[in-house]
Amino acid sequence: MSSGGSEMQDTADRGSRRAGRGGGREARRAARAGGGGGGARLPYVTRRYKPFEVLDEEGLSIVENNADTVLQEIGIEFRDDPETLEIWRQAGADVQGERVRFERGMLRSIIQASAPSEFIQHARNPANSVKIGGDATVFVPAYGPPFVRDLDNGRRYATIEDFRNFVKLAYVSPALHHSGGTVCEPVDLPVNKRHLDMVYSHIRYSDKAFMGSVTAPERAEDTVAMANLVFGEEFVDDNCVVINLINANSPMTFDATMLGAMKVYARANQACVVTPFILAGAMSPVTVAGTLAQVLAEVLAGVALTQLVRPGAPVVFGTFASSISMQSGAPTFGTPEPALVTYGAAQLARRLGIPFRSGGSLCASKIPDAQAAYESAATIQPALLAGVNFMLHSAGWLEGGLAMGYEKFVMDADQCSMLQTFCNGVDLSENGQAMDAIREVGPGSHYLGCAHTQANFETAFWRSRIADNNSFEQWQAEGEQDAAQRANTLWKKMLRDYEPPALDPGIDEALGEFIAKKKAAVPDSNI
Amino acid sequence: MSSGGSEMQDTADRGSRRAGRGGGREARRAARAGGGGGGARLPYVTRRYKPFEVLDEEGLSIVENNADTVLQEIGIEFRDDPETLEIWRQAGADVQGERVRFERGMLRSIIQASAPSEFIQHARNPANSVKIGGDATVFVPAYGPPFVRDLDNGRRYATIEDFRNFVKLAYVSPALHHSGGTVCEPVDLPVNKRHLDMVYSHIRYSDKAFMGSVTAPERAEDTVAMANLVFGEEFVDDNCVVINLINANSPMTFDATMLGAMKVYARANQACVVTPFILAGAMSPVTVAGTLAQVLAEVLAGVALTQLVRPGAPVVFGTFASSISMQSGAPTFGTPEPALVTYGAAQLARRLGIPFRSGGSLCASKIPDAQAAYESAATIQPALLAGVNFMLHSAGWLEGGLAMGYEKFVMDADQCSMLQTFCNGVDLSENGQAMDAIREVGPGSHYLGCAHTQANFETAFWRSRIADNNSFEQWQAEGEQDAAQRANTLWKKMLRDYEPPALDPGIDEALGEFIAKKKAAVPDSNI
Repeated sequence: MSSGGSEMQDTADRGSRRAGRGGGREARRAARAGGGGGGARLPYVTRRYKPFEVLDEEGLSIVENNADTVLQEIGIEFRDDPETLEIWRQAGADVQGERVRFERGMLRSIIQASAPSEFIQHARNPANSVKIGGDATVFVPAYGPPFVRDLDNGRRYATIEDFRNFVKLAYVSPALHHSGGTVCEPVDLPVNKRHLDMVYSHIRYSDKAFMGSVTAPERAEDTVAMANLVFGEEFVDDNCVVINLINANSPMTFDATMLGAMKVYARANQACVVTPFILAGAMSPVTVAGTLAQVLAEVLAGVALTQLVRPGAPVVFGTFASSISMQSGAPTFGTPEPALVTYGAAQLARRLGIPFRSGGSLCASKIPDAQAAYESAATIQPALLAGVNFMLHSAGWLEGGLAMGYEKFVMDADQCSMLQTFCNGVDLSENGQAMDAIREVGPGSHYLGCAHTQANFETAFWRSRIADNNSFEQWQAEGEQDAAQRANTLWKKMLRDYEPPALDPGIDEALGEFIAKKKAAVPDSNI
Repeated sequence: MSSGGSEMQDTADRGSRRAGRGGGREARRAARAGGGGGGARLPYVTRRYKPFEVLDEEGLSIVENNADTVLQEIGIEFRDDPETLEIWRQAGADVQGERVRFERGMLRSIIQASAPSEFIQHARNPANSVKIGGDATVFVPAYGPPFVRDLDNGRRYATIEDFRNFVKLAYVSPALHHSGGTVCEPVDLPVNKRHLDMVYSHIRYSDKAFMGSVTAPERAEDTVAMANLVFGEEFVDDNCVVINLINANSPMTFDATMLGAMKVYARANQACVVTPFILAGAMSPVTVAGTLAQVLAEVLAGVALTQLVRPGAPVVFGTFASSISMQSGAPTFGTPEPALVTYGAAQLARRLGIPFRSGGSLCASKIPDAQAAYESAATIQPALLAGVNFMLHSAGWLEGGLAMGYEKFVMDADQCSMLQTFCNGVDLSENGQAMDAIREVGPGSHYLGCAHTQANFETAFWRSRIADNNSFEQWQAEGEQDAAQRANTLWKKMLRDYEPPALDPGIDEALGEFIAKKKAAVPDSNI
């Protein structure tokens, strides 16, 4: 595939056009076909509605003005990274020690001069390439948990086998459009080498788009090198094939690790998701408007830096917004204030003109119970209506991100499928209007057997793979299972039925050689 | 209180103004104060956003045009009710047998000539009066389940004791703004008399607004008579004090029972919620646009009838929208198609210019598990953003409405409280902007102890009464409870701490005499 650049572009464009036109019927049929062994998939979500908004023009101006004040008066710290300070000096910012201050509007001008409003992230299977930005939403698995949990074994440290399992589960989940990044931390592997196995797992066990390593600049370099082996150097330099999570150390600080990885990826023309990681009350003020001003200031600084490093590099406005309990200091999820932050930040991103990342199926619950579901729904539903483009943490998240749940993963994927069908909107075709059905049936009868119902039988309604809609008596006779127990059965079946996508043996061999050489070059280390 | 009309009006207006102005801070403080013995309460929700919409002007016109075609070509059946047919004849409709057809636009004209766009439903405690319509949303308990369920005793037939318990739980739940109607069916009482005990329980054990009996015209008369004893006849004739659920027998049919109750209430100037009860695929076409056209036709017919009976009588555009499984025929909940119907119907109601009822915490799950929570959230969240005014079934619903869950009730009430805080919107005051906090803290520090955080400590974030946000280790040490177990502890405490609101002994005595007389007049019957 290393020379297939233009073909992939064409196919991705076709995929995009198909998604743009794609009726609910096609999407629903694909959804039902999912979960088998192979490449069952839906195109990314194309939202057919105007986003829901919580701030008016005046509110947005207040927040933008306050962000400019933060950047001008207080500034942002860029720690332990003289190169970045030099970039800012060259750009005309006010650099004093590690503190950098910016004239009002300066960063917005830099960003709007070159940052793309949307871009395609290419997957090694072009049918799985995703649009990031505009009216597209991409559902991406959860990122980062050191633990995993399932009903059989409870909570335990994650391993590379768990990592592969979640890559496989995402691969066979039609409404997960992306393979994600650190779907769990494979703590059985040394810290300084595990990124090689993670990136390889995404390439080998899936053919959806994936995320790169950001835990050290040299690990980012390794990610780009592996992407070059798969896509070809020239294609990678021209196109986004890997997207990467760059967190700010809020408040108003970026550290050398994240700056280093960011510069590697921006120089390689790969996408950075610049994300202030905010638990309001700890890393930002306890108010929504205060949090939004700080988030915007931090994002403007990080995003502008990518454009100074390489104008036109793909970049995403990220927020991770939650709050802390004022009683215990513990993070909380599914509460109303972070939903307001997400809506507001999405509006700010649209005004800035770049794609937006937030949301996901976040929860504080330790187990896949009603708390987990309420909190997850109260995070991902607002994020979808806000117009999030890159929905990290869409599936699997438990316990404030400390654990990746097998049952939670397939439950959340089921909800993503539901939300994707919602986004297809109302079919106003003649068949959708169904006047013949109403005429045929008439008052006091029913539609169960009418011609229109029969004609639409296959595609009429979205169908959950986990919900039990049977009678009480039947549910009782079948053992009174809860949703988690049914999800347990489902993920095991999905892993049993999994079949890996094809991978060019030459590419696989090249990746193996690269990884072996890298692993042999330095001793194992856990920092 | 029987002579307190004008005072109640004044106080209700004050309540309304307070709600309109009411900051998030006040509401949140009230939310936290809730759950004690007495009258902890929030004013009804005042939504500060434009509703989310799924149909454009063209789509709305298509649906409205199709509804007119249904009314003109097919018509609506009014069964076993010669008086209603005569009313239609007088109004100029085309009556053939029990089938009534309407010229295009005729019903809309009747409705828009007299139906109020919003109204106050008065509670016997004026502080609990609610606005129905406009930017108000009123959260109302679930309605109708013959069974109840709790963790201790599982599922069993409901009794009048359960009924009283749910009235008490709604009374002490600040974000439930209404006492509801048939919160469960007290099947231990005879069918022809239980309405007396139900209405009395709402009056005696709560002072929030409530719903009347609709299962027979004479039971509706009894409801009005009891309301007269509480509010005074003159006040009742001038004001809405009871709201009532009038279901159409979809497709395109109204039966004599519902018509009879509707006419009683409309003549008494009490509110009817005219609701096509739709499981799409059975009572309506399998498509969203087809369902909307039929719903609109049915609602136009029912609502116009109330205005012919008494011009100006308060009336609500209702939908109950769900779908059936095309495989089993079982009703499903929390799926995307009913959410689209809710959004679309809300837009149609706004164009018609009357209040709207739909939504609730609907689910098919038999137990308060993750399925119940996902499905409930996927129903009530869209309904809220759609702009539902009267949110029946906001709390307690399980098993497609067959069971009222004690744990589910308090979980749902917790979510209502969360959603109410969301609706307060973004505080853009100087305190909300929090620039002093950002200046005080600066880069790389934290906000935990800063002056702004301390000043806002009490009111900063909404707090769940059920979610566990503690560390994994603490949760484990406390017995690894799930949300349902914590909810079980909570509802028992709420009932233990419950203290009844004061009720004028004269009114209580009059109600007792009325009920005793009514019960003695006819033998018990279970039809």
